[in-house]
Amino acid sequence: MTELPALAAVYEPLASSVRELIDVTIRTEVDAATVLKARALIDTAAHELSRALMPGAFGLRTISDGQGSAWGNVVIGIRNPVAPPLVIHHEPDGQVWTEFELGAAFEGPAGHVHGGISAMVLDHVLGATAHQPGRPAYTGTLTLRYVRGTPLGPLRAQARVVRVEGVKTFAAGEISDEQGVTVQAEGVFIHPKS
Amino acid sequence: MTELPALAAVYEPLASSVRELIDVTIRTEVDAATVLKARALIDTAAHELSRALMPGAFGLRTISDGQGSAWGNVVIGIRNPVAPPLVIHHEPDGQVWTEFELGAAFEGPAGHVHGGISAMVLDHVLGATAHQPGRPAYTGTLTLRYVRGTPLGPLRAQARVVRVEGVKTFAAGEISDEQGVTVQAEGVFIHPKS
Repeated sequence: MTELPALAAVYEPLASSVRELIDVTIRTEVDAATVLKARALIDTAAHELSRALMPGAFGLRTISDGQGSAWGNVVIGIRNPVAPPLVIHHEPDGQVWTEFELGAAFEGPAGHVHGGISAMVLDHVLGATAHQPGRPAYTGTLTLRYVRGTPLGPLRAQARVVRVEGVKTFAAGEISDEQGVTVQAEGVFIHPKS
Repeated sequence: MTELPALAAVYEPLASSVRELIDVTIRTEVDAATVLKARALIDTAAHELSRALMPGAFGLRTISDGQGSAWGNVVIGIRNPVAPPLVIHHEPDGQVWTEFELGAAFEGPAGHVHGGISAMVLDHVLGATAHQPGRPAYTGTLTLRYVRGTPLGPLRAQARVVRVEGVKTFAAGEISDEQGVTVQAEGVFIHPKS
């Protein structure tokens, strides 16, 4: 089996290229003939990549050491062009944080992050406070309070554990821009009984 | 100015092609040489599309009759390859529903929709109960209860207005698969005072 870093070196740049393509697909103003030309290239690329496909979705594939299983994740997956992708940092005190940039692909109100994308980021970041190696946590409940619009651009999300009760981890966190908090969240994350 | 249907006929198939490319980018198992070849095609397509780009994000562009302004939206935008895209139906009684399919691009737990993507869909669908032409509503609060995992595949989301108090619309809804409800949501959506 090919080593994971070698696989990452092949597939991560591919996802990055597609991420860039997504952005310009939304923002392009070229004429119809140029769009047709670009589409032909894109369809050819998709055809090439389709010569060998894993069935279903990425996580269904078993990778022996388990490290690659999050590569398809819509929030953090380095092989998923939809993922920003977030890089999650864990501090020794249990705090979790990530700094990232959201562009045209994540727009809701003009120039702003879609409220649902803020919810997605907070679900993941709050959940990350409860995740343990080999012991994932699932969202039980999540409550979001939108303080003001979140502008597209550089952002930070962070979360912390408020308390733990048996299989339940209670977490809280927020998204901020340079001016401060834009969305606050509280959530309960559950470790399935093993 | 080019008519909107003519513009849609140019750009919607482009976004569809990129959506297909996203899926196979995640699922491909071709060798490194084929990946390199596909990347070169993708980068050339992105270069072509970049010959004329609107600055920033799609919604910042003013389209005279306003109809095109949601084309970049991450949930419903026909020009946004990240968007599934959801097609929102409004019933005469105020009920809102949509049927859609989520594939590999939206994965969280293996074979399942990321909890954050369910949150994104419900934010949009609940919000759609409050939207009125020319009078958007913004999310105030959103609470999600995850009943069980949501499998990738065909899904339905629906929402209804529970009550209206001044500028606030209280809405409730859920995501379901064939077996029933997977995620429930309640939200408060606010019409900014004009």
